[in-house]
Amino acid sequence: MKNIYVIGVGLIGGSLALDIKNKNQNVQIYGIDSNPDHLNEALDLNIIDQEASYTDLSNADLIILAIPVDVAVIELPKILDHSSDNTLVIDVGSTKSDICKRIENHSKRRNFLAMHPIAGTEYSGPRAAILNLFKNKTNIICEVEKTAFKLQEKALQLFSDLGMRIRYMNPEAHDKHIAYVSHLSHISSFMLGKTVIEKEKNERDIFDMAGSGFESTVRLAKSSPEMWTPIFKQNKHNVIETLEEYIQNLVRFKTAMETDDFDEIFNEMKNTNHIKDILNGIA
Amino acid sequence: MKNIYVIGVGLIGGSLALDIKNKNQNVQIYGIDSNPDHLNEALDLNIIDQEASYTDLSNADLIILAIPVDVAVIELPKILDHSSDNTLVIDVGSTKSDICKRIENHSKRRNFLAMHPIAGTEYSGPRAAILNLFKNKTNIICEVEKTAFKLQEKALQLFSDLGMRIRYMNPEAHDKHIAYVSHLSHISSFMLGKTVIEKEKNERDIFDMAGSGFESTVRLAKSSPEMWTPIFKQNKHNVIETLEEYIQNLVRFKTAMETDDFDEIFNEMKNTNHIKDILNGIA
Repeated sequence: MKNIYVIGVGLIGGSLALDIKNKNQNVQIYGIDSNPDHLNEALDLNIIDQEASYTDLSNADLIILAIPVDVAVIELPKILDHSSDNTLVIDVGSTKSDICKRIENHSKRRNFLAMHPIAGTEYSGPRAAILNLFKNKTNIICEVEKTAFKLQEKALQLFSDLGMRIRYMNPEAHDKHIAYVSHLSHISSFMLGKTVIEKEKNERDIFDMAGSGFESTVRLAKSSPEMWTPIFKQNKHNVIETLEEYIQNLVRFKTAMETDDFDEIFNEMKNTNHIKDILNGIA
Repeated sequence: MKNIYVIGVGLIGGSLALDIKNKNQNVQIYGIDSNPDHLNEALDLNIIDQEASYTDLSNADLIILAIPVDVAVIELPKILDHSSDNTLVIDVGSTKSDICKRIENHSKRRNFLAMHPIAGTEYSGPRAAILNLFKNKTNIICEVEKTAFKLQEKALQLFSDLGMRIRYMNPEAHDKHIAYVSHLSHISSFMLGKTVIEKEKNERDIFDMAGSGFESTVRLAKSSPEMWTPIFKQNKHNVIETLEEYIQNLVRFKTAMETDDFDEIFNEMKNTNHIKDILNGIA
């Protein structure tokens, strides 16, 4: 792969560009972004070598689509239209059903590989891009059988170079599961931040009392609304289901407190401590 | 201060012992704990120099009470009974109203300083104790005027040696505010862990998809139920209030999703991004 086009030079697109360049100095990285400031930043930071436009895409060996998921479903068909038979197109969005459905009948469907690298931080934009973001991280690939063999091979070599571990899953299962381990975490964190900020209006001393526990729990509330609103929209059904279960669990906890059932409170926490073993499996 | 007695040689008591010893090699650290395994561990780890019992407490310059808050309110009067006029007794519990009320009429009230160092990790026991845990952390002191002058001075010197910044607050305000920035975070994290674990029963693949975002949000769900159940019990009224507000915010978020009001979802997140500036203030 020589000519790499990154559409969306933010945290994920930019970090992929940095890793690819780091592994292979001979590649040329082209950037496309609707935000001219981001393009300039990406040039300044040497994340991309030069700007490009859709008409250049026929020249691409690899196109990385790393933009908000609502725009991705609109742009992907156009991108496929512009790409050649040898171009591998990958996307990195946090929802997979809509995008796979959108291009299922596209004449260049076999050029596309749907994936979701489980990697990132709460920051966004080119300045958030970092080297080795994907090392030892999970990359979920959807509908691999719908991608051309030689492009599958090219993609797997790339992910292997980046140190990622691969999991295959269908788009519906991906969207259902990711609602629990990623989308719900963001909402719980945002609403925690909101609840405390509302209180702060009249009680400015609160945050002076916050420690690392609060900081960790509320970290995801720094995330980009531009990125997350379309994710929640596309995964609406699954996210609402997880929210219902989460709210029910919180209501049950509150009821146990109201009825002084502290044995129940203790047991709930003891059982959930099992998360330690699970997280050890992740780390 | 020469003779230091640590009652409860866990994360907080143990870390205080390590710091004090580190600043002054001449002190003698005595450990008291209802758990003989913890005492042995604390000896092995050189957190304490030797075991002791309540009858030795008249010998103490400083007594650190670092046990679950339900046991602390029972033990503190006995500890004060055993201490001499020159003994400073401090506690480190996460609730302050009950303990202050419990000893308000004790003849040795002026030997006691109620405090809450905002420091810790999700781990517990002597093995969790670490050096410099309190450096640059906030220490909330309650009812300072009820402590004898010379013992106030002794305490402030100690906290200064440990690098802590001091905030004064009444116990009721402490318990109200800490419910938001600490107790609620623990419940939101525990219930997030519970919601995802319940799902996992039939869907073992979920955790393979979890990333650092989930890990951060659910970190506090590793915390000790033995420590947290009595905290929730003692701060029941305030914690229920924060839970009600949190649940309301989650229900509103869910309703906005159900009615496709994604402008509202966007604005909620945008407003809550303000947490960035607030957390910068903490870090």
